[in-house]
Amino acid sequence: MNTWMERLNRRTGALGSLCVGIDPHVGLLQAWGLPVSLDGLRRFADRTVTALADQVACFKPQVAFFERWGSQGMAVLEETLANLRQAGALVIADAKRGDIGSTMQAYADAWLGEGPLACDALTVSPYLGIGALQPAIDLAAAKQRGLFVLARTSNPEGTAIQLAWTSDGRSVAQTMVDAAGQINHDLGTPVMGLVVGGTRADVGVDLTDFQGTVLIPGIGAQGGTMSGLRSSFAGTKAKLLPSVSREVLAAGPAAASLRASVARLLAS
Amino acid sequence: MNTWMERLNRRTGALGSLCVGIDPHVGLLQAWGLPVSLDGLRRFADRTVTALADQVACFKPQVAFFERWGSQGMAVLEETLANLRQAGALVIADAKRGDIGSTMQAYADAWLGEGPLACDALTVSPYLGIGALQPAIDLAAAKQRGLFVLARTSNPEGTAIQLAWTSDGRSVAQTMVDAAGQINHDLGTPVMGLVVGGTRADVGVDLTDFQGTVLIPGIGAQGGTMSGLRSSFAGTKAKLLPSVSREVLAAGPAAASLRASVARLLAS
Repeated sequence: MNTWMERLNRRTGALGSLCVGIDPHVGLLQAWGLPVSLDGLRRFADRTVTALADQVACFKPQVAFFERWGSQGMAVLEETLANLRQAGALVIADAKRGDIGSTMQAYADAWLGEGPLACDALTVSPYLGIGALQPAIDLAAAKQRGLFVLARTSNPEGTAIQLAWTSDGRSVAQTMVDAAGQINHDLGTPVMGLVVGGTRADVGVDLTDFQGTVLIPGIGAQGGTMSGLRSSFAGTKAKLLPSVSREVLAAGPAAASLRASVARLLAS
Repeated sequence: MNTWMERLNRRTGALGSLCVGIDPHVGLLQAWGLPVSLDGLRRFADRTVTALADQVACFKPQVAFFERWGSQGMAVLEETLANLRQAGALVIADAKRGDIGSTMQAYADAWLGEGPLACDALTVSPYLGIGALQPAIDLAAAKQRGLFVLARTSNPEGTAIQLAWTSDGRSVAQTMVDAAGQINHDLGTPVMGLVVGGTRADVGVDLTDFQGTVLIPGIGAQGGTMSGLRSSFAGTKAKLLPSVSREVLAAGPAAASLRASVARLLAS
């Protein structure tokens, strides 16, 4: 099996560096003419996968929209993951999990292990410290999978904490960037990626030396283009993986419209 | 229906202020002589609820240990929640969810709404800002439920971020305390609780003026006693809700041993 980075590079090399969110929230189910129900959830996910699996490098199902329906919604997520795997697409579970010790281990086992929720990569949240994520880092490294830790997000409510100053004079967000880079250096393979918002003019963290993948939500509907993004993030060694949800999904439910929306974005 | 705080006060008034974690991790399943399987998970949860539901005010299932088994594990959690409700116990889902916008709304709907995962309260994680939790705050207030936001935890990896300094000279953890207190003041009812670790001599945040509930993991096995806790947290107006997992659960699987362990802790 290849490393997460090798799989990602191969697939983005063929299809372009884009991640598409699978975000079946109530408003989108209604906009697609689907019932607001488990059946609607399943049909939304199926249509998205069928329309885009061979066109898009990577998918990012937003776990909350499945969890919203309880265990039966999670069963729909498992089916969706199986369909994506079958189609050869890569999957980042957007779950933003974060805990300590045996609890963090259990989240890692759920999303990066061998069970029905296992994905290529997982988003994680570091309020308990990036060091608390160690069980997930270890398992991701062992299983050739990836993690994306929240560093600097584009929502305004996140600024106070993410730009707070740690005792050594760096921002909290920068400590995440630096720690993730160090982990990748020590492992010798870029298991740790970052989540960095892409809609501010100022990225807010120094990514010059970061070697790994930066997942960048917020292109498309939230204002950014692919070329704008490359200029905002100019000068970094990192691999950029822009992620789009609203702009592509709002073009549905017709498969041709979804595909045209992806094509437009890839060329933007 | 009474508010979350009224339900909590009534139940802790009758049984004592204690929350017991339901943490069926692999090591505990083995220690209880149970198979490491869905069946073992179900039997662990059933035994804990049957032994303790009439003795303990509040339970805190650790969601990761159910999610670890995928959708079928989440179905076991749903059964466990139904059993706890049936027995009249209060339940805090320890899920540490945190996101923004429609995604946060979906997590709120899952855990504080009307579905099979609905609980009395939910733990939430604020790396995206406490303001990003607004959909959960609104739903908790509307449904007479509660939230517990991570403020200051006892694991060493959390210190750098939680004691980072925000632009107005407070620590990140203190901004969580102050914001939660302000939200409760504005709502006129203490929907927002805090998670504050209980095993350091120095609590690390000023809780003097906080009016709400403080969930304090870490008594028992991690070193604290009930009376030690009351002295560490002396001088606050907050309601203290100590939470124990390891010390009680390690006494199982015999119901009498579990109950004796709870009785010992309540008297400590």
